[in-house]
Amino acid sequence: MSSHEDDTTLQLDRAHVFHSWSAQAHLSPMAIAGGSGSHVWDESGRRYLDLSSQLVNTNIGHQHPKVVAAIQEQAAVLTTIAPATANRTRGEAAERILAHAPDGFSKIFFTNAGADANENAIRMARLHTGRDKVVSAYRSYHGNTGAAVVATGDWRRLPNEYARGHLHVFGPYLYRTEFWASTPEEECERALHHLERILQVEGPDTVAAILLETIPGTAGVLVPPPGYLPGVRALADRYGIVLILDEVMAGFGRTGAWLALDHYDVRPDLVTFAKGVNSGYVPAGGVMISEPIAKSFDDRVFPGGLTYSGHPLAMAAIVATLDAMTEEKVVENAAAIGTDVLGPGLAAIAERNALVGEVRGLGVFWAVELVADQESRTPVSPAIMGRIKAGMLARDVLPFVADNRVHVVPPCIVTPDEAALGLEVLGTVLDEVAAAL
Amino acid sequence: MSSHEDDTTLQLDRAHVFHSWSAQAHLSPMAIAGGSGSHVWDESGRRYLDLSSQLVNTNIGHQHPKVVAAIQEQAAVLTTIAPATANRTRGEAAERILAHAPDGFSKIFFTNAGADANENAIRMARLHTGRDKVVSAYRSYHGNTGAAVVATGDWRRLPNEYARGHLHVFGPYLYRTEFWASTPEEECERALHHLERILQVEGPDTVAAILLETIPGTAGVLVPPPGYLPGVRALADRYGIVLILDEVMAGFGRTGAWLALDHYDVRPDLVTFAKGVNSGYVPAGGVMISEPIAKSFDDRVFPGGLTYSGHPLAMAAIVATLDAMTEEKVVENAAAIGTDVLGPGLAAIAERNALVGEVRGLGVFWAVELVADQESRTPVSPAIMGRIKAGMLARDVLPFVADNRVHVVPPCIVTPDEAALGLEVLGTVLDEVAAAL
Repeated sequence: MSSHEDDTTLQLDRAHVFHSWSAQAHLSPMAIAGGSGSHVWDESGRRYLDLSSQLVNTNIGHQHPKVVAAIQEQAAVLTTIAPATANRTRGEAAERILAHAPDGFSKIFFTNAGADANENAIRMARLHTGRDKVVSAYRSYHGNTGAAVVATGDWRRLPNEYARGHLHVFGPYLYRTEFWASTPEEECERALHHLERILQVEGPDTVAAILLETIPGTAGVLVPPPGYLPGVRALADRYGIVLILDEVMAGFGRTGAWLALDHYDVRPDLVTFAKGVNSGYVPAGGVMISEPIAKSFDDRVFPGGLTYSGHPLAMAAIVATLDAMTEEKVVENAAAIGTDVLGPGLAAIAERNALVGEVRGLGVFWAVELVADQESRTPVSPAIMGRIKAGMLARDVLPFVADNRVHVVPPCIVTPDEAALGLEVLGTVLDEVAAAL
Repeated sequence: MSSHEDDTTLQLDRAHVFHSWSAQAHLSPMAIAGGSGSHVWDESGRRYLDLSSQLVNTNIGHQHPKVVAAIQEQAAVLTTIAPATANRTRGEAAERILAHAPDGFSKIFFTNAGADANENAIRMARLHTGRDKVVSAYRSYHGNTGAAVVATGDWRRLPNEYARGHLHVFGPYLYRTEFWASTPEEECERALHHLERILQVEGPDTVAAILLETIPGTAGVLVPPPGYLPGVRALADRYGIVLILDEVMAGFGRTGAWLALDHYDVRPDLVTFAKGVNSGYVPAGGVMISEPIAKSFDDRVFPGGLTYSGHPLAMAAIVATLDAMTEEKVVENAAAIGTDVLGPGLAAIAERNALVGEVRGLGVFWAVELVADQESRTPVSPAIMGRIKAGMLARDVLPFVADNRVHVVPPCIVTPDEAALGLEVLGTVLDEVAAAL
């Protein structure tokens, strides 16, 4: 397209579109016109390798032809229908999702996205237990609505604290330990001790739910040590608390497994999902519900719902996405990319570049944490992060930047060559920035 | 399709799908397979005239070919992109919506549906004013998430009261006046007095927002008297309070105007929308923002956002829906159906049938309130409402039933003949039920 058209898009955007999490007078958005696989392009035709999966949601890549076709076919039949009806595509989507749920899960409640998935999971936990409080992590993100944003641990909670009944704990994060720990085992043990102490002093029988991202995502891909989630499960069992695992970002292939919880010996009571379940091609999210909690609402009314719960167009995108991911071994690809390319490649960058404090991750879910000083672990400044982002964009790579980290989160269908190219650009930019300091 | 397939759909549904606002063991959903215009059909091919517009959302009717084509075309180009980008279709959707906004509105914040539209409008009001409390109506519905469900006035709030800072007032509803009024003028004046008294005793400078459905919908199509909303505007101005009008159900043609607020001499500060903006073909909602509130976030970060804000597929459905509604004079049709068919037809039923306490409405937005006794105005029992619903379904008409009311809310594209047929069935069923008492 011509640059005139690009101007029109930007003019329309700046005139009329109010943007998320931003000061509106200080925006310079890219005008993205299309995408395919691991790439997107702007209206001038310039192509970018997408190491962000947008907001870590296009797990199956951009414009997967089978998912696009399924949306087009469902659109021709029935786009929308009230949730009180039964609908074939909705039933099939639920069945497909449950095939990847832990044992003992029987039902799906569909929502529009991750935030309202967490809202409804919290609601189920409170009503199932008859208790009030919800414990989540300081380093976490659970969505932008009333309860979800207050369950969130990061800065986005602070201007939005209008929900009550929420408290927060520190999770395991050895690189910046809150527990004066020096080994993963010690960090794990102390994080569990801290959680149990909070439960005890808050009164365990006032706590309805522990809500955790299986692997905290935007907070820094904080892969927990193997014993942490089983330990949380044991505490939840001890005190009769519902364990909700938020798999909105980590689920559906991102970690090289169908769910991130598959890496751990843990069975939650509720699992929330969105993003990767249909790569966001049509807005959708939901709650996977274990049998005892589902049964809790057999004879009493579940007081939650929404107009687009189980929306046929969104459901068709789920069915096609999960089928294509299975047929094309997309999850296996994500695992192999992590083991063969991103893991060793990022380790090599960390080895040679003094800016890199730590790399963490698995599958296509990695964080590169950047520090001004290896000893003090002081985060690099926003100005340096800005330079890194600009350097990657200048080399046609879209990064995902959060605080002092670059998250390397390409689609799960990324090829080894694409992943290697992304690493090469990241490494070059980091080397240049380090050299200029 | 065969009845075997229908069984499979119902089996899948009952096995795996958790339903909104329901006790899960007491459901008997219809399996809807398709729709067109004012009709839907089940998997056996049985057709129903849809007087519900599902959840009062399919304003343009089922499967409008231009909207379906727009979804299919956008799906082929770009289904999803991060909200931080600029996108042509998103800019065009915002421009189209603002063409129907009140004067002085400049920006759109897109959400997934009505609930998160209200969440974000409340957030904007609180941050713009620096105040805390939100006043809404006891007879209202604003969505199922944290703050939205507590802003709600009906029973759905009660098991979900985990947001703070909300209080409720009674609005005008002469048929069941809370103010011992005997004329619309008196009801209006007293409802405004009641609102001002609540503001005064709560401390007006603690109140961030007054949030009202322009015409409360699920609560009973409670058309306010002409002076009420201008009176609320004057109170909001007097005390520096943001006025949010919720047009999720009433907006985009439902009342025979583009927005329900067009019927009144009132200019709100924020308007929330969803449903009719694209008839729910792809989940979408949003907030229309007046210039002073938009400017409030020019230099400071707006602390709200979501992955699917301004989702291209949803935006394409908005553009096509609003264009088709304009070209095909869908809003004008809704107005004429109200004036020429539903208004006089419902009045005639009320005239002859002792069950009908009151009919209220405009456009294709009507409520028929049923009472056991004209004097006491005691609502009819749920058993009688069940008989009415079953009687209409037996005659191939899908009603919208709420409490002791039948809401007559067909798509805005309903023809005079279809509307007349719906009224004939409703009248016949009400006459039969009345005769059997």
